[in-house]
Amino acid sequence: MKVNGQALRPIRALPSRDAVEVIDQRLLPHRLHIERLETPAAVHDAIRQMWVRGAPLIGASAAYGLALQMNRDAGDNALEEAAALLRQARPTAVNLAWAIERMLRVLRPLPAAARRDAAWAEAQAIAEDDVRVNRAIGEHGLALLQAIAARRPGPVRVLTHCNAGWLATVDWGTATAPIYLAHEQGLPLQVWVDETRPRNQGASLTAWELGQAGVPHTLIADNAGGHLMQRGEVDIVIVGCDRVTARGDVCNKIGTYLKALAAQDNGVPFYAAMPLSTLDPSLHDGLAEIPIEERSAREVTHIAGRAAGGDIVEVQLVPDGTTAANPAFDVTPARLVSGLITERGIVAASAEGLAAWTRP
Amino acid sequence: MKVNGQALRPIRALPSRDAVEVIDQRLLPHRLHIERLETPAAVHDAIRQMWVRGAPLIGASAAYGLALQMNRDAGDNALEEAAALLRQARPTAVNLAWAIERMLRVLRPLPAAARRDAAWAEAQAIAEDDVRVNRAIGEHGLALLQAIAARRPGPVRVLTHCNAGWLATVDWGTATAPIYLAHEQGLPLQVWVDETRPRNQGASLTAWELGQAGVPHTLIADNAGGHLMQRGEVDIVIVGCDRVTARGDVCNKIGTYLKALAAQDNGVPFYAAMPLSTLDPSLHDGLAEIPIEERSAREVTHIAGRAAGGDIVEVQLVPDGTTAANPAFDVTPARLVSGLITERGIVAASAEGLAAWTRP
Repeated sequence: MKVNGQALRPIRALPSRDAVEVIDQRLLPHRLHIERLETPAAVHDAIRQMWVRGAPLIGASAAYGLALQMNRDAGDNALEEAAALLRQARPTAVNLAWAIERMLRVLRPLPAAARRDAAWAEAQAIAEDDVRVNRAIGEHGLALLQAIAARRPGPVRVLTHCNAGWLATVDWGTATAPIYLAHEQGLPLQVWVDETRPRNQGASLTAWELGQAGVPHTLIADNAGGHLMQRGEVDIVIVGCDRVTARGDVCNKIGTYLKALAAQDNGVPFYAAMPLSTLDPSLHDGLAEIPIEERSAREVTHIAGRAAGGDIVEVQLVPDGTTAANPAFDVTPARLVSGLITERGIVAASAEGLAAWTRP
Repeated sequence: MKVNGQALRPIRALPSRDAVEVIDQRLLPHRLHIERLETPAAVHDAIRQMWVRGAPLIGASAAYGLALQMNRDAGDNALEEAAALLRQARPTAVNLAWAIERMLRVLRPLPAAARRDAAWAEAQAIAEDDVRVNRAIGEHGLALLQAIAARRPGPVRVLTHCNAGWLATVDWGTATAPIYLAHEQGLPLQVWVDETRPRNQGASLTAWELGQAGVPHTLIADNAGGHLMQRGEVDIVIVGCDRVTARGDVCNKIGTYLKALAAQDNGVPFYAAMPLSTLDPSLHDGLAEIPIEERSAREVTHIAGRAAGGDIVEVQLVPDGTTAANPAFDVTPARLVSGLITERGIVAASAEGLAAWTRP
């Protein structure tokens, strides 16, 4: 996507192949800062500290992390250690493990001397595949938005949670891909952007992306979405996902489940945009089986923003000594999901719907 | 309730009756600042700008606002103008209108010369009635907590949204009254405190209150409550309410409806603590009939907190130019409400349950 008229991606391999450049997303929307990463440890830290975030981007980043390791030591031990390190960076995102496995399948059989070239080529392929996948998700999701536009006058009102935008992928985004394609085609849109506490990815990233692309949007507190649905002001909910089970349970950013409940209660269709790499066919009951990352209490008790003078300042929101819990994801049961928008089409969130991709 | 060992209320009439003192709640939890109000206009502004907030406290404040007017000009015109001014301060809180009507019923028949004494006496009676009402709500709600404690070991885990605590009333709070009574009796508790964006009354006020009282509590993002209920970590939800219709629809802080949906989906009892003054028997369908206050976008786009140096700093959370919507309340349909905890007992959220108090 373009930023200030320039094409930009949240991750880019340098032609020299001695580093990758990423946007430090912690500084958005206030500063667009590009950071250079040269080692798997730096990539691990960038994932862990959420300079890069979003399931697809984490996968691509981890792949490049292994490629960076191959620059240094392409031996078996070094490869496995780097893979183990990167795998620990975020436990919930299945794409992370998926991308590392894809890299290892290519690299393990090769002699060490052949691994560097192969690693950079495969990481690049993972990144480009992601762009194609998201574009295809966009085209399938676009049909949903066009159908709504055909039924009623005025803009199509989409609610989205967190940032499943291009910043969370290599390009296009997942939940946002239908929105960007619809906007390109001149379909009138109004996007409700959930702030997405505690890390505010909606307020800081999705609002920034949509603003850069000129898509009309309105920020809301996470608390407001149910009320808007009750008032008939939401036509469709589209979210991303971090992991989907074989029966269609959707693990996504904390708070997604609450929006799915409200959508069901008000007859609003609720879709998850799901690259098939996000499917974990080994799991069925998402609530029982998906480990949920518990993040730092400080993400809840403190927040950073831009002070009047322009400085980024972190402020404490709570009384001294307040403890906080910070589960980062929740699981939306398949029964609340109208459908999964994949790169191969829209399928039901059910074992039957996903069967084509879960057969051994 | 006590703060640093000293009894404190969020509103207090000076013995001289020339002013009332209120806590400027915008500065909590970082500063406990008491402000003196001498005119109905000052009371209006304090309500409007949320120095004082919470339906019962707003009602008591408005009553004192009329008493302050009687110090200055107790004529019919001045009385009616002050009542009209105060009534506009917050459109959603039915207690505001209720308290003003109660004052007017006493004051209108009196000669101007008798109104000052009567107004201060009636405002004081409204305040003391609120304390008694909340204490009674606490006793009825306590039975619910005791019943949970009797069924399972470990602390009773209560989730609450926003601040329906003593800061929102004259004392005890509504939703918190059962909690404070249970804590006094040594019942082990664990309170999940919803942050309550955008104004963070949970993070700043409820967390502060519970901390001062020594009640174990954990702050969570508003997004997290559904997940905790899915995991079986919430025994009961107790919220306050700003207005309840004759059939039991509950208007309360934005986001309450989402928690009620999650409670229903997980079999968690969901109660609203409701002084009977909050009942609006003229309304039935809360969703269709209750006007919802739309507050400033800036409450969503900016937030204030304490910077490392101790200063209270407001920071911008969003890209420049971001628009936000800010509905302040939502309506939880009666079908999602397990019961209403009133000062006269717990009743079903239904026309039948409320019938004793809605008969003409």
